[in-house]
Amino acid sequence: MNKQLIFKKRPIGFPDEQTWNLETTEIPILKEGEVLIQHHYISLDPAMRGWMNDNKSYIPPVGIDEVMRAGSIGKVVKVNNHPHYKVGDCLTGWGGVQQYVATDGTGWHKVDDTIAPMPLFISTLGMPGMTAYFGILEVGKLKEGDIVLVSGAAGAVGSVVGQIAKIKGCTVIGIAGGKEKCDYLVNELGFDAAIDYKSEDIYTALKEKCPKGIDVYFDNVGGEILNAALTKLRMHARIVICGAISQYNNKVKVQGPSNYLSLLVKRASMQGMVVMDYAKDYGKAAQEMGMWIAQGKLKSKEAIFEGIENFYETYGRLFSGDKKGKLILKVLED
Amino acid sequence: MNKQLIFKKRPIGFPDEQTWNLETTEIPILKEGEVLIQHHYISLDPAMRGWMNDNKSYIPPVGIDEVMRAGSIGKVVKVNNHPHYKVGDCLTGWGGVQQYVATDGTGWHKVDDTIAPMPLFISTLGMPGMTAYFGILEVGKLKEGDIVLVSGAAGAVGSVVGQIAKIKGCTVIGIAGGKEKCDYLVNELGFDAAIDYKSEDIYTALKEKCPKGIDVYFDNVGGEILNAALTKLRMHARIVICGAISQYNNKVKVQGPSNYLSLLVKRASMQGMVVMDYAKDYGKAAQEMGMWIAQGKLKSKEAIFEGIENFYETYGRLFSGDKKGKLILKVLED
Repeated sequence: MNKQLIFKKRPIGFPDEQTWNLETTEIPILKEGEVLIQHHYISLDPAMRGWMNDNKSYIPPVGIDEVMRAGSIGKVVKVNNHPHYKVGDCLTGWGGVQQYVATDGTGWHKVDDTIAPMPLFISTLGMPGMTAYFGILEVGKLKEGDIVLVSGAAGAVGSVVGQIAKIKGCTVIGIAGGKEKCDYLVNELGFDAAIDYKSEDIYTALKEKCPKGIDVYFDNVGGEILNAALTKLRMHARIVICGAISQYNNKVKVQGPSNYLSLLVKRASMQGMVVMDYAKDYGKAAQEMGMWIAQGKLKSKEAIFEGIENFYETYGRLFSGDKKGKLILKVLED
Repeated sequence: MNKQLIFKKRPIGFPDEQTWNLETTEIPILKEGEVLIQHHYISLDPAMRGWMNDNKSYIPPVGIDEVMRAGSIGKVVKVNNHPHYKVGDCLTGWGGVQQYVATDGTGWHKVDDTIAPMPLFISTLGMPGMTAYFGILEVGKLKEGDIVLVSGAAGAVGSVVGQIAKIKGCTVIGIAGGKEKCDYLVNELGFDAAIDYKSEDIYTALKEKCPKGIDVYFDNVGGEILNAALTKLRMHARIVICGAISQYNNKVKVQGPSNYLSLLVKRASMQGMVVMDYAKDYGKAAQEMGMWIAQGKLKSKEAIFEGIENFYETYGRLFSGDKKGKLILKVLED
């Protein structure tokens, strides 16, 4: 049987128990040219919250009564005459929150799970890693010597952004929630400084820890942290708008950055990004990041929780911040 | 004697009668290497409001008891051994709101007032024209076929932005206040459409007049118009932040654009500019714009009011919108 998380009701604010329903259905019967993938891991990402809204966005919203959209990784367990894939192949794609998925392979790609553990392919070698890589290097136009500020710095994207900036010879300040995460950034990931937004006043902390201002701000959170970062821009600074997790569960309007006129004063720019635009270069990026990982220059951290039954509770950790690194749900049952 | 407008008190909100004082002093005595310029025209610009605030910005604020800062144009009436300038030369620079100014020439440059009337050199061939030229071409990265939206479209900068975009083969929609200005944009300046923000709902009007969205938004006003423009961005759109006249007299916080996450959805950018950065290329731009004017492709409109005594009332027109084109004060007395 196949356990599937079905999207039942568009949430207002934070999703509640009515948002999804866990249902058990038959494992799909393969058509000619299809493979059956058994999911091992599901990727949980803040972007999921956006996909639930009935808005025009960079992809259509998840439909009511559809399987909840999610990135995933698993192994081929059955094949009906597929031209490329065979039983045992490890594939990653948009499989959704369910245990099994049938596909003709469109949008999936094969990875070699003998060179790295599976979770890594939906973490630093997957979407979050790609987002960090192209976001900071291409959109952020990172240069050696830049002073880089990153929010959500202990998360899947932010932690990689900061480490790439260190590899490239920059000064890096991370913003995260809680002492443990801040210590982790400085002591384990090599950030130059960290700001605990839960216990520090962000304006005072920026003054202390970025006394010379910032060249690049990589924003995962929006809200007052974005607004504060705008007051510290250096000339020709770049702000990368990757997300706005502080605003995703708003029941009221998104908070606009009232300090945006700093863009004028500092001839700075604020640019949005969506990782899918860089798909053709994922291979090159994964190769470079894989090398950094092998050399010990880039650490990938996954927070893995178990059981598709625990989806709701685990999803909540994205927004409570109660996890470190990439949030992953293991759905393979022993 | 020299009539000077002295800055007396930093305003909160819109300047009042205590903000400035008109004083009469001796005409300055020239030092060795100086010239005396008799002002003919003073440039009145929305940016003046920003210069009155005691904030860090792209230039220092005007000091209390100093002559109010302003661009100006006039003629040399006296010389004390100046290496380049002679009596009768026409010079433009930052002379301030006063009738006479003594200078060694730093920051001034000579123009040929036999080829164009003096006001044009502080209008389309001066700062506002340069702002429009570099703003739309360099910061806005204008391409043939782009759909361009410009606010403050009947103003000194906006009217030139729109006309340059037409010259470059774009579709241009202007936003201005009142039917007369909107008719002027379409009938006299060749804009494709105009939106009267005073009588139309901006969201509805944008839906009607920019049905395909916009590639470039040139923003002079900020506030709800910027926020509305953000909802109409096409992929890879560019927003040029040139000013925010709707917010300059705020007594409360600037309104941040709550729709800024459209930048992410549309992979768009928002970039600030200050015209002084392009100073080394002013000559080239003035030459090209002068050619367009001569060919009848670019119209320059000046709204000229008379008398330094009427500064306060005339300055108010910048914000009430009660003028068309570049606002200029004639301070030469007959």
